[in-house]
Amino acid sequence: MKNRQWLLARRPDGPVKDDDFTFVETDVPAPGEGEVLVRNLMLSCDPTQRAWIAGDTYLPAVKIGEVVRSFGAGRVEKPNSPGFQVGDVVLGLVGWQDYAAMKSSGLNKLPAGTPLELAMGVLGMIGMTAYFGLLDVGRPAAGETVVVSGAAGATGSLVGQIAKIKGCRAIGVAGGPEKCRWLVDELGFDAAIDYKSEDVKARLRELCPKGIDIFFDNVGGPILDAALARLAMRGRIVLCGGISAYDAAEPPPGPKNYLNLVSKRGRMEGFLVFDYAPRAAEAIGALAGWVREGKLKYRVDVQHGLENAPATLRRLFEGKNEGKQLLRIAE
Amino acid sequence: MKNRQWLLARRPDGPVKDDDFTFVETDVPAPGEGEVLVRNLMLSCDPTQRAWIAGDTYLPAVKIGEVVRSFGAGRVEKPNSPGFQVGDVVLGLVGWQDYAAMKSSGLNKLPAGTPLELAMGVLGMIGMTAYFGLLDVGRPAAGETVVVSGAAGATGSLVGQIAKIKGCRAIGVAGGPEKCRWLVDELGFDAAIDYKSEDVKARLRELCPKGIDIFFDNVGGPILDAALARLAMRGRIVLCGGISAYDAAEPPPGPKNYLNLVSKRGRMEGFLVFDYAPRAAEAIGALAGWVREGKLKYRVDVQHGLENAPATLRRLFEGKNEGKQLLRIAE
Repeated sequence: MKNRQWLLARRPDGPVKDDDFTFVETDVPAPGEGEVLVRNLMLSCDPTQRAWIAGDTYLPAVKIGEVVRSFGAGRVEKPNSPGFQVGDVVLGLVGWQDYAAMKSSGLNKLPAGTPLELAMGVLGMIGMTAYFGLLDVGRPAAGETVVVSGAAGATGSLVGQIAKIKGCRAIGVAGGPEKCRWLVDELGFDAAIDYKSEDVKARLRELCPKGIDIFFDNVGGPILDAALARLAMRGRIVLCGGISAYDAAEPPPGPKNYLNLVSKRGRMEGFLVFDYAPRAAEAIGALAGWVREGKLKYRVDVQHGLENAPATLRRLFEGKNEGKQLLRIAE
Repeated sequence: MKNRQWLLARRPDGPVKDDDFTFVETDVPAPGEGEVLVRNLMLSCDPTQRAWIAGDTYLPAVKIGEVVRSFGAGRVEKPNSPGFQVGDVVLGLVGWQDYAAMKSSGLNKLPAGTPLELAMGVLGMIGMTAYFGLLDVGRPAAGETVVVSGAAGATGSLVGQIAKIKGCRAIGVAGGPEKCRWLVDELGFDAAIDYKSEDVKARLRELCPKGIDIFFDNVGGPILDAALARLAMRGRIVLCGGISAYDAAEPPPGPKNYLNLVSKRGRMEGFLVFDYAPRAAEAIGALAGWVREGKLKYRVDVQHGLENAPATLRRLFEGKNEGKQLLRIAE
C-alpha cells in the first residue's frame, strides 16, 4: 500500500505546467492522536488553487515540496479521533494524494448516501459562492439586470439561475456558441454573449439598455472593463476572484474604467466564501430546495485518475470544463 | 458694461492649456422671466472641471463655444424672480464670466455676512465631500487607520481631520516636505508621506502595520495601487474622483492590485457629493461646529482676476494650490 502524491516543484510561471509538480510515491501515513486517515475518492479542481501555489493569499502559499492543496472528499479508513468511524465520508483540504492524515477539525462529515457530485458541486463551495456572492454582496432586487462572466462555469451558471429565481434578468458571458446555447436554452438565461466571437461591449450596450445593475465577475480583464463601462447608476460589481489573473505570471492590467464607480456611485466588492461557513445551512437548504424543484440545473465534469491532476486543473483555465470540475481518484 | 467670458475652444488633450479656451467680451445678459442676473465675485476651481470640459460625465459635457462651467458665488444685480433681492449673495454654477443670467432654481442664497472663503470651502462642496465620503461611504470606527491621498488638498486635509475627530489614526500622502509638515504639525495628522521623495509602499508598510482600514482616494494611479497592496481585512476604498485621470488625455492604467479586494474582502466605492444635497444641513452643522471648536482647520488659496481662470485651474493639477483654490474676480 503506497500513497501517491503530487508535490509542488516550483511556483508556476504563466499557465500551470506538468513540470510545476512532481509525482511521487511514499508510505501511507499513520494518523497521529486526534487525526483521521482518509482514503481520498474525489478531488475538487478550483481556480483558487492556482493562487495557492503561486504565493501567499488568504491562505499561506503551498511550500515547494509540499503536497498540492486541494479540496476533496474521502472515506475514513483509520479514525484516530472521537466522532469518526470507518466508512464515514468526509470533506476537507485533503490534497493531491491517495491518502491524507487529517486533523479531525479540518473535516466535515457528509450525510450518508449524499452523492459526491452534489455535495462537491451545487451544495458545496460553488453553490455557496454563487448564493452568498450574488445575494449578500450583490443584493439584487427583482427587475434588475445581472450580468455574469464565466457564465458557463460551475459558479457562474448557478449565479445566473439564482438571479432568475430572484426575478432578475440574467445575461451570461461565456466562450463559444455551445456554452451560450446551453445557458439560454437549458438554464433559462435571458441572453448570452460569446466573448470569443462577439464584441462584448457592443452586445452589453444592446442587451442592457438601462445598464448593468450587478456584474458578477469570475474572470477580470477586458470583460470587467466592458461591464464597468456599462454600469448602471448604483451598480455593484461582485468580485469572485479572477481566473485571468490567477493564471498569469504577471497580474493583468487593472480595470481602467474603474473611475466609472465614481460617476455611477458604484460599488466593487470582493468576498471569500469561507467567511460564510457559519451560514452554510441557510445556503444548502435553499439550494437543495431549488434543485428538487428543478429550478437549479448543474453539470459536473468528472475526469479520472490522480495522475491527471495537473491536466485536470488546467482544464479550468483553458475553458474546457463543462460544469464543476471534479477528479475521481478512487471508487 | 461688458461681460468677459471664457469659452471652451476645444477639448483638452493632456494638461489644460490656455489655448483650450477663448477669452471674449460680450454684452451683459438681460435676465429672462424667472431668472436672476448675478455679478460673479468668486469662482471655485475644482478638479472635476477638467472632466466637465473633456466629455460627458455625471453632467453633460460643456459644448465647444459654451462658457466654461464653474461653481461660484455672486451678488444679485437684477432679480427677475420672486424671493431674490438686489445685493443677495448666491451660490451656483455661474461659469467663468463676470455676469450670469441664472435660473433661480439653480441658485442658493447665503446667509448675510457669511465669508465666501468659508461658504465656498469648509462649509461648501469640499467640506460635504469630506464629511459624507469619509463617514457615509468609508464608515470609520474609532481606532481604525485612515489613509488619504491628495492630503494637503482642500478635501483631503478635511478628511484627515474628521478621521481624527472620529478617533481614527490619520495618515496623509502629499507632495513635498512643506505640505507634509503642515499636515502633521498644524492639522494633527499622525503621519504624512511625501510621495515625491519617499517610497509610498514601504512607508505604508511601516506606518500601517495592521493595514489600511480606509483609503480615501483623491488621486488614483500608483498611490491607489500601493494602498490596495496594504489593505486591511474588510478595508474600504472611497473613490473621490481621480485627479490623475482627469488630467490625462488617455485614462491611466487601472489599479492592478484590485484583486486584493477579494482576498481582503474589501470594498471600493465611488460617490458624488451632489447626491447628499438633501442632507447638507447635517454636514454644515457638524462642520461649522468643528471649525468653531478649533478642531477643523483649513486654508484657502485665493488667486485674482477672471483673466487668470485657466492658469488657476491648472494649479490644482500642478499641485500648487495650498488649500481650497478660489479665484476672486470682483470685490
